[in-house]
Amino acid sequence: MIRRMLVANRGEIAVRVARACRELGIEVVAVYSTADREARHVAVADTAVCVGSAAPKDSYLNIPNLIEAARQTGADAVHPGYGFLSEDPDFAEVCAAEGLTFVGPPPGVMAELGDKAAVKALMAKAGLPLLPGTDTPVDTVEDGERVAAGIGYPVIIKAAAGGGGRGMTVVADSREFRSAYLATRTAAHAVFRDSAVYLERFLVGARHVEIQVLCDQHGHAVHLGERDCSVQRRHQKLVEEAPSTRLDDRLRAEMGQAAVRGVRSIGYTGVGTMEFLVGEDGRYYFLELNARIQVEHPVTEAVTGIDLVVEQIRVAAGEPLRLAQDDVRFAGAAIECRINAEDPDRSFAPAPGVLDRWEPPAGPWIRVDAGYRTGDRVPPHYDSLLAKVIAWGPERPVALARMDRALAELDVHGEGIRTTAGFHRAVLNHPAFRAGEHTIHFVDEFLNEEKGDGQS
Amino acid sequence: MIRRMLVANRGEIAVRVARACRELGIEVVAVYSTADREARHVAVADTAVCVGSAAPKDSYLNIPNLIEAARQTGADAVHPGYGFLSEDPDFAEVCAAEGLTFVGPPPGVMAELGDKAAVKALMAKAGLPLLPGTDTPVDTVEDGERVAAGIGYPVIIKAAAGGGGRGMTVVADSREFRSAYLATRTAAHAVFRDSAVYLERFLVGARHVEIQVLCDQHGHAVHLGERDCSVQRRHQKLVEEAPSTRLDDRLRAEMGQAAVRGVRSIGYTGVGTMEFLVGEDGRYYFLELNARIQVEHPVTEAVTGIDLVVEQIRVAAGEPLRLAQDDVRFAGAAIECRINAEDPDRSFAPAPGVLDRWEPPAGPWIRVDAGYRTGDRVPPHYDSLLAKVIAWGPERPVALARMDRALAELDVHGEGIRTTAGFHRAVLNHPAFRAGEHTIHFVDEFLNEEKGDGQS
Repeated sequence: MIRRMLVANRGEIAVRVARACRELGIEVVAVYSTADREARHVAVADTAVCVGSAAPKDSYLNIPNLIEAARQTGADAVHPGYGFLSEDPDFAEVCAAEGLTFVGPPPGVMAELGDKAAVKALMAKAGLPLLPGTDTPVDTVEDGERVAAGIGYPVIIKAAAGGGGRGMTVVADSREFRSAYLATRTAAHAVFRDSAVYLERFLVGARHVEIQVLCDQHGHAVHLGERDCSVQRRHQKLVEEAPSTRLDDRLRAEMGQAAVRGVRSIGYTGVGTMEFLVGEDGRYYFLELNARIQVEHPVTEAVTGIDLVVEQIRVAAGEPLRLAQDDVRFAGAAIECRINAEDPDRSFAPAPGVLDRWEPPAGPWIRVDAGYRTGDRVPPHYDSLLAKVIAWGPERPVALARMDRALAELDVHGEGIRTTAGFHRAVLNHPAFRAGEHTIHFVDEFLNEEKGDGQS
Repeated sequence: MIRRMLVANRGEIAVRVARACRELGIEVVAVYSTADREARHVAVADTAVCVGSAAPKDSYLNIPNLIEAARQTGADAVHPGYGFLSEDPDFAEVCAAEGLTFVGPPPGVMAELGDKAAVKALMAKAGLPLLPGTDTPVDTVEDGERVAAGIGYPVIIKAAAGGGGRGMTVVADSREFRSAYLATRTAAHAVFRDSAVYLERFLVGARHVEIQVLCDQHGHAVHLGERDCSVQRRHQKLVEEAPSTRLDDRLRAEMGQAAVRGVRSIGYTGVGTMEFLVGEDGRYYFLELNARIQVEHPVTEAVTGIDLVVEQIRVAAGEPLRLAQDDVRFAGAAIECRINAEDPDRSFAPAPGVLDRWEPPAGPWIRVDAGYRTGDRVPPHYDSLLAKVIAWGPERPVALARMDRALAELDVHGEGIRTTAGFHRAVLNHPAFRAGEHTIHFVDEFLNEEKGDGQS
């Protein structure tokens, strides 16, 4: 088993991993940038090493410094968290070369996952349905018009180098194609220095539903059900929940089996997330595979009782899975709200500062994973996630009521600090969301509605 | 249903009740003494009324002021929490007379429960086993010696007016009886102005195991399994857990059925706790019935997923139980540690003060019910409970590891403040406790051991 873990991350996920390590009796080495000397993830560790200055490239993305920190402290494993180097095959490779257990899939699998089109092709080969679309860039407007007609409108034009919602345009019908195509290419070139674009069917009324998988190094894999992450703003998830109101038991089992088939087909190990879009008719389409622990993993933990980070560490250490698919039971409903230091009234602009007062909610069936404590400075260099609030209930309405209660309790003050808590409460109390009838366009529609009400 | 609840309590249980009310859409009226103006339970309420000065008799025990507060604020129900007036039949009666729904059993039942000997007799009639003992006071040493011989040694001499561990003496054999009897009577008269004593068999190797019951006003009752509260110091519970390592499924079902039979036989309604001693041989003996929500109720919530305070409020409002016995499922193991502002190195003397820093633990499967926030003053007038930390795990060792991790995270500082967190960690890591082989004498033995190690 692992003896000493270097956690190559910061904020709430570094704290989360440290907690799992403690519960497993593994010592924790934190790393930090000069902006994070006093950070919470440093305080909860056994040892901490400064790995560079505030800019991510100098510290949390600095592979030589991270490896040196592991060497100095005698760490025998590295947990990358999410973001930063978590999906960097080079980092996984260097760790392996240094004899460090990397908590993630094998470097070869990670390298394969870097090419999203190739992954889609592999998943199609494993029998997973894909949205009709192109798997090579569409280089002329005439090709584009022809392909779009074949796919059927509405279509979405996606920059090859884009992602996370950037560089995408939805085209409702053929008359709009030419100008949208040209505009997307131009924007993609300006932003990403790469004008290549793909085309894909745009699914009306879609929900973002992802399946959590867990695979050991001995060929065993299980799925842990779904998370519905349809509440997104510019493809950034804001609220996640399980189960999805779009799925029934049959569809859950079918998508779960498909996800397991997909990851097994590529020799995947560790925790992973298979993302899908699910249409109004219950048809689902594979989007991508995330080879890391996800921000929203606590939702799955709440409904299954399974500690995903602990299981992730165990399988990375070579242990066989301790559960079969039939051992995975789902109970109740869980929801997570990401409390970001952002100003919803100013297009969710980052609003960092000093947390003069940070009183998170607590009590029955409320979990808070926070990266900060009272008195901490939220640095402007990293993501704006302050904390995740997770609520569980035997049924969805109870979980929602608990979340609303928890968000009302949250007490944050500090120069410059604004949070998304009030926005989340508005989402929770929106009739469409309460009814579970929202789609991935909910937040856009909702914000437009709000604007229509005169909020600027 | 109830519209506006006056919570006639303070500290963590007042916060707990307020949270349940919020989740049910019930408005919350807090009451406070002059020492609690800035208290957390006031901050979480919709309205708050000062009901008197710091001394409990002037405020939290002041029935006219509480009733006036309910009248002023238009409250239609009263939740008494635990302690204070929670088991006072007069208060229940006055509430009823004022048209206020009292969240507890009917006044008549509460009045009956005041006489512990009478309750034992009623439970014996319902077929519950009692420890051999006297049901009337033993007034002479000669009577005592004769009765003790009939019961069989060891016996325990209990002051009729005692309770909570005060006024009790264990007598190992007949040669010690006379002096112990006389000393207990003298002490009882000095402390309680009542020298009456009872005799009872003293059970060797006993565990304190209590069964949680829930009864509606329509004759339905279920049990929610047991809590093991054997870790006690001077009969004050320090650690509680579910399930008990002393019980198997058969014994759990048997004790649960006995508890339900007992409460049904007296027309009990609401939540209640039937306390038992369980011997090494698995034989169990009824001790007493607590007619309130217990401090340790979250342990049961964690293993059943049932919100006891919500259910308590619903049945008080006249709703029928929403679950049958077969709907009650137990999952995993849960443990609670009471974090008191006390100094374990000074015989657990209260150690109140100002919480300059109060950072409770958080994260996966950790629940904290706290009565305070950073900056709060812990007043010396009330109990010393700062917070309850509850950990859940799929198996007991995982729950214990999580609790240990959580207690290590707890960060409390302030002039005068000491806590029991370190003591709890020592208990958690004690081989007898870890093995689940401890008895109700564990803390005494453990503290003596510690003293033997030179800790004074």
